[in-house]
Amino acid sequence: MTGAGTDHTRPKIEGGPTIVLVRPQLAVNIGMCARAMANFGLSDLRLVAPREGWPTRDPVYREASYSAAAGAAFLLDSAKLYETAREAIADLTFVYAATARERGQMKPVTTPAAALPQTVARIAAGERHGVIFGPERTGLDNDEVALADSILTFPVNPAYASLNLAQAVLLTGYEWFRAAHGDAIPFDNSERSPPATREMTLSFFDFLERELDERQFFRPETKKPVMSRNLRNMFHRMGLTEQDVRTLRGMVVRLIEGPRREPKKASRRNPSEPE
Amino acid sequence: MTGAGTDHTRPKIEGGPTIVLVRPQLAVNIGMCARAMANFGLSDLRLVAPREGWPTRDPVYREASYSAAAGAAFLLDSAKLYETAREAIADLTFVYAATARERGQMKPVTTPAAALPQTVARIAAGERHGVIFGPERTGLDNDEVALADSILTFPVNPAYASLNLAQAVLLTGYEWFRAAHGDAIPFDNSERSPPATREMTLSFFDFLERELDERQFFRPETKKPVMSRNLRNMFHRMGLTEQDVRTLRGMVVRLIEGPRREPKKASRRNPSEPE
Repeated sequence: MTGAGTDHTRPKIEGGPTIVLVRPQLAVNIGMCARAMANFGLSDLRLVAPREGWPTRDPVYREASYSAAAGAAFLLDSAKLYETAREAIADLTFVYAATARERGQMKPVTTPAAALPQTVARIAAGERHGVIFGPERTGLDNDEVALADSILTFPVNPAYASLNLAQAVLLTGYEWFRAAHGDAIPFDNSERSPPATREMTLSFFDFLERELDERQFFRPETKKPVMSRNLRNMFHRMGLTEQDVRTLRGMVVRLIEGPRREPKKASRRNPSEPE
Repeated sequence: MTGAGTDHTRPKIEGGPTIVLVRPQLAVNIGMCARAMANFGLSDLRLVAPREGWPTRDPVYREASYSAAAGAAFLLDSAKLYETAREAIADLTFVYAATARERGQMKPVTTPAAALPQTVARIAAGERHGVIFGPERTGLDNDEVALADSILTFPVNPAYASLNLAQAVLLTGYEWFRAAHGDAIPFDNSERSPPATREMTLSFFDFLERELDERQFFRPETKKPVMSRNLRNMFHRMGLTEQDVRTLRGMVVRLIEGPRREPKKASRRNPSEPE
């Protein structure tokens, strides 16, 4: 994990549901929530009466929150402060209350995976959605849950359902990102060597089997067809690239010929080296 | 969030892929990873050469890690310690390397959502799968990535791809849990009042419209059909329960009759009170 995957030249993704932290107890958790939001392109952070104040003047709290936010300090700088949850959600059109337990309130209960695709569609249609999260120790009180249209909860181990505040924000952001931006892998190996053609692979197999045959690998002779098929299937499972086939061929050559003698002939190209 | 949703009487869920933290830098992060594992029923935690030692004797580190683990201290107590990543994965049959960036290695790249369903099936078939995670700041080194069968990465905001170590473990556990145990909502409101029958709802609408009609709410008279349909649709959108209908009916009665006079007749039941 680490910052190594972060590319600040990529366009910053913004938008998504508003994240409202109601009476968060620890400034460090506000920082961790900001970081989780940034990971998934959420950009509207609102704080309701944080216990340690906001923006916190205590240098210890401030350092803890900005350190936890890592590169997402911009979300801490732009976080909006409210006195009540009601004020914090006044401009939203649809509100989820995140809670880890049954709250005895007649509201639909949904999970991020089920809810966020709908949120993506409705935000695209101009609605403003948000999720309110309660304090670390107690969660939202019942009157705060009553402010919401729907309860958002998480599929967790029922014997250990206590999600950390930032982790609840993270799962919300994760499902938002998957729904809004697709589940695309952020990188792949497609620029590596191209896959070997079947002709190239088969030609290597032929070469290998000829050499093995000469060295009487296939014994008894009647087993040769099965042994050969097993061997070919083993190599097929590797999904060989062109470079892989060259490397394997070079490896077999070396096994056959023994150590290279210096100086080797300039005309003989080592087939294991990349082009 | 908070511990309020935790129910220690529920059977503890165990199993899932092994989580290997390679050279973790901070004991507190080991604790946070344990908590994330417990949230999703993962139970095999392995540590490779933690920088602050393990089990850490420094009381500050120890306190930080156990505090971050919250109720998941049992995972810290049972964590196994290794000197190298190779030793830590020796008994596994399939290994993912978690990384946030392209590593120039010819390996399949997958996401937790795509990979974990397969892992569930293969663990059920007797295989032992694991995921190795690198140090917070640098991630896995290339030789460690080379130990793995496949690269596991996360769909994140490319402008801010740096996932916290525990959050990467959390997303892995989350997708494991969804694949292994379903995306079931851990609670619902099904024990609340049952949904109202259509007859009960329609009877309330009739009552309401009769009262509104008497008070000349529907003006001009030609608009009455449209106004009535709109009103009925509004209430239908609420998905009324039996208790909801009783509450609404009681509310309308009070609006019509004005303040209740004390003492009210014992024979007159307040229709807004639950049975």
